[in-house]
Amino acid sequence: MTRGSRFRERVFTIIFEADTPAGKAFDIALLIAIVLSVAVVMLESLPDMPARFRDAMVMLERIFTVLFTIEYVFRLYAVSNRWKYASSPLGIIDLMSIVPTYLSFILVGSQSLMAFRILRLLRIFRIFKLTRFMNQASFIVGALQASRDKIYLFLFTVSLITVVTGSLMYFIEGGVNPDFDSIPRSIYWCVVTITTVGYGDISPVTPLGQFLASLLMMTGYAIIAVPTGIISSEMARRQHTPLMVSTQVCPHCTGEGHDRDALHCKYCGALLNEEKKG
Amino acid sequence: MTRGSRFRERVFTIIFEADTPAGKAFDIALLIAIVLSVAVVMLESLPDMPARFRDAMVMLERIFTVLFTIEYVFRLYAVSNRWKYASSPLGIIDLMSIVPTYLSFILVGSQSLMAFRILRLLRIFRIFKLTRFMNQASFIVGALQASRDKIYLFLFTVSLITVVTGSLMYFIEGGVNPDFDSIPRSIYWCVVTITTVGYGDISPVTPLGQFLASLLMMTGYAIIAVPTGIISSEMARRQHTPLMVSTQVCPHCTGEGHDRDALHCKYCGALLNEEKKG
Amino acid sequence: MTRGSRFRERVFTIIFEADTPAGKAFDIALLIAIVLSVAVVMLESLPDMPARFRDAMVMLERIFTVLFTIEYVFRLYAVSNRWKYASSPLGIIDLMSIVPTYLSFILVGSQSLMAFRILRLLRIFRIFKLTRFMNQASFIVGALQASRDKIYLFLFTVSLITVVTGSLMYFIEGGVNPDFDSIPRSIYWCVVTITTVGYGDISPVTPLGQFLASLLMMTGYAIIAVPTGIISSEMARRQHTPLMVSTQVCPHCTGEGHDRDALHCKYCGALLNEEKKG
Amino acid sequence: MTRGSRFRERVFTIIFEADTPAGKAFDIALLIAIVLSVAVVMLESLPDMPARFRDAMVMLERIFTVLFTIEYVFRLYAVSNRWKYASSPLGIIDLMSIVPTYLSFILVGSQSLMAFRILRLLRIFRIFKLTRFMNQASFIVGALQASRDKIYLFLFTVSLITVVTGSLMYFIEGGVNPDFDSIPRSIYWCVVTITTVGYGDISPVTPLGQFLASLLMMTGYAIIAVPTGIISSEMARRQHTPLMVSTQVCPHCTGEGHDRDALHCKYCGALLNEEKKG
Repeated sequence: MTRGSRFRERVFTIIFEADTPAGKAFDIALLIAIVLSVAVVMLESLPDMPARFRDAMVMLERIFTVLFTIEYVFRLYAVSNRWKYASSPLGIIDLMSIVPTYLSFILVGSQSLMAFRILRLLRIFRIFKLTRFMNQASFIVGALQASRDKIYLFLFTVSLITVVTGSLMYFIEGGVNPDFDSIPRSIYWCVVTITTVGYGDISPVTPLGQFLASLLMMTGYAIIAVPTGIISSEMARRQHTPLMVSTQVCPHCTGEGHDRDALHCKYCGALLNEEKKG
Repeated sequence: MTRGSRFRERVFTIIFEADTPAGKAFDIALLIAIVLSVAVVMLESLPDMPARFRDAMVMLERIFTVLFTIEYVFRLYAVSNRWKYASSPLGIIDLMSIVPTYLSFILVGSQSLMAFRILRLLRIFRIFKLTRFMNQASFIVGALQASRDKIYLFLFTVSLITVVTGSLMYFIEGGVNPDFDSIPRSIYWCVVTITTVGYGDISPVTPLGQFLASLLMMTGYAIIAVPTGIISSEMARRQHTPLMVSTQVCPHCTGEGHDRDALHCKYCGALLNEEKKG
Repeated sequence: MTRGSRFRERVFTIIFEADTPAGKAFDIALLIAIVLSVAVVMLESLPDMPARFRDAMVMLERIFTVLFTIEYVFRLYAVSNRWKYASSPLGIIDLMSIVPTYLSFILVGSQSLMAFRILRLLRIFRIFKLTRFMNQASFIVGALQASRDKIYLFLFTVSLITVVTGSLMYFIEGGVNPDFDSIPRSIYWCVVTITTVGYGDISPVTPLGQFLASLLMMTGYAIIAVPTGIISSEMARRQHTPLMVSTQVCPHCTGEGHDRDALHCKYCGALLNEEKKG
Repeated sequence: MTRGSRFRERVFTIIFEADTPAGKAFDIALLIAIVLSVAVVMLESLPDMPARFRDAMVMLERIFTVLFTIEYVFRLYAVSNRWKYASSPLGIIDLMSIVPTYLSFILVGSQSLMAFRILRLLRIFRIFKLTRFMNQASFIVGALQASRDKIYLFLFTVSLITVVTGSLMYFIEGGVNPDFDSIPRSIYWCVVTITTVGYGDISPVTPLGQFLASLLMMTGYAIIAVPTGIISSEMARRQHTPLMVSTQVCPHCTGEGHDRDALHCKYCGALLNEEKKG
């Protein structure tokens, strides 16, 4: 093993892993830097900030960008499969968190570039790497993925309801109420209503419109039970199945439904085979 | 088989089914046309649309109507039981999505016909025919149907609460607050409040009214648990059933619904076959 | 049996029961009368109702009151235990739905008596007597009663949070924001916020107030899961236990956990005792 | 046992316990005093209170403070481990409920001290000591603690969504809509929206902003299912466990956690005793 490859391995251990003291220290420092850099972007946006203070924020933001750039270069250096890292979600976020500041140098004063710069905030997702939460997260994500199709169906149905009701409301309120001046705006109102957000920037004034709005609210109030039921029952199933019952069959009496920790068949007392973990 | 009936069968396969390449292509084209025609109706409604552009939208809308009419005629031609199709929910939606445009020719300038025209948006429900979602949908619909009576009871109770509280609020706020100028309007406010929508277009000003409103909000906040509990437990039950009940049929009395751990038929006592794992 | 007691029995059958054709007709007529009389009270309250129409409504309302009074007298006549009926919830509602109109004759023009008159709307609860919903209702009510203490605890905790946060918000926003001009008003705002109603009639303006408000919203958003979880798990438990497993023990092998429809023990095949229904 | 220690023991029984008549009477009196003192603080804050009445409230508040101080001294006297009590949550709340009034004497007119005074309201938590609710509370708290990590993950994800969407909205609406004049304010709006509170003090005006807002609302509406599912399934699991697992201990190996229908110990194969029903 050459000196170079040993150094590269060490960089990898520090930057990508959190098992060694150096690796842990690096991750904690990175987290603090991310939070600080996000705070800097936010402070920069405050309207009554004095110019001097704002200049300091801009300077700090650039320093953070340089630091994150160095970090990104080291990540590319240390990792064995560069393209795989660069095209992974975390790699893309890493890159996107430094690019906007550089772009703002080339296209000076270009307001529209703020959109990219703001995505630097996603950098905070890297916190997930410090995990004792990973197991819990995979439980939640697993339940959501298993319920994916049902959730899509639900969102699709809700979308259809908002389009149909939005159009109806445009017809009912359109001439009378300047709030409902187009179908898209009426649909926006429907989303605000069915999700029970209810800003009140747009609200019906005709009795028929208020009646239809009431029906829509009751619908939104009741059908929230659907995604909740989907996720609840899926999570309940997950908690029941793997924890409680093994797939073992008693070699003597073919009894089933034994607990994972069962050694003997609960029906005939014969010794069970050891379960294979996987 | 005559040439005519063979052509009709082919039309049926293309329009009603999605198994052949032609059928699939047709369905995808139809979906795109539906989405585009809905977009056209929406754009037409935008208030600051230039007249020329709006005219183009009206023209496009008519073209889509003609296309959908041709499609509807072919559907009637291809299907064996015409009346059954025409009176099915999808058949009615198909018809209702073309009728309003024609009606608007006869009764020129009649604003009130917009109500029908808007229902064309329901056409989008046809997307459901492209299904890998049907199983999931039937799971959700099944759970909702099994919970139907309970949901009705819940909505009925909520309706009663809104009527009683609405009347009380009219009595309390009526003289003081112009927002509560009739019982129906107070009931509308109650629905807005108990469903936690809360527009704020109507809100109580007297201390007693605000106290009663607080109680109503807490009620609405807590009883949302009822429909959620109903649907969740029903879905959990449905998800459990296939896990807890075996697919075995008693070889003696053909009884079904035995537990996974049953050795003997619970109806006649005959020995059951061993369950095959899969 | 005297002629009088036979007549009384017949009146009882008609008014209190819905099994005979006459009893069913009476109940349906009563339901219609209740809905109409509620509609009359609502129409009476509309502000831009012409005087002539309003007079007609007042007259109709009095006719309904006379009819309901006659009905109430007959109920008292027909029932065997008068006091038990008169002091039951339904009996009290029956009485309260006729008293306000008579009181408004004695204390002419007394606006405050409207409060009682409005309670006539509760009369609609009598609809519950026409039941195929009773089983479902008792399932829901049973689950709610079993969860009563937990729900009280939840509401108590939410109340404490609103009092404490309301006071804090009064301290933070009090001097700056005229919306938060007293602690009770701040608490009202807290209820509006934690229940996710959010009228917007009162809203924080200071950064600290907005930050605290954000925390309160997140709290309200997350803890709605508590009552939902309580009711869901209670309903799931109820659905599992009584429907699926009988309390029978196999007289031969003492095996348990047999389905309600099991005739033979699923472990040894012995005949089970028949379950007593109740 | 000296007379002093006997007196101290008696004070302890009265103040800290609720088993004796005197102890119960003390606790009830204390509860009433707490509620009254909170009411006094609230009345004091009402803006249109006449000066004379307000002076009376201030006087009453001081009397309550003196009473609570005496009570606090007696608590310290009666308890065996003083430091343990003083540093316990209830001890700290007891102290914090009297300190603010005294502080307001030293720093006369200091408005900012109101913040501490308000925390006296937490005193109401002492009600929890009168418990038949403790079991239920520990069920809820237990389920919440077991779900802690999942709830944190959920709140963290929601926070990230609000920060990212808030920044995007600032970019989209920033120049056009004075409501979105800084990133922190946009994030506040996101929290108001995703939690479905929806004050309407800030609301998007651009079509793109309204579209993004709609997506955010749908997200908030759907993902409320996640904490609900977590808590529901956890509570269901807790309620199941005692039902599905018997209380039997293997007479041979003392293993526990056998299924209700187990005949043999699942650990050693010994025959289990029959379970006693009750």
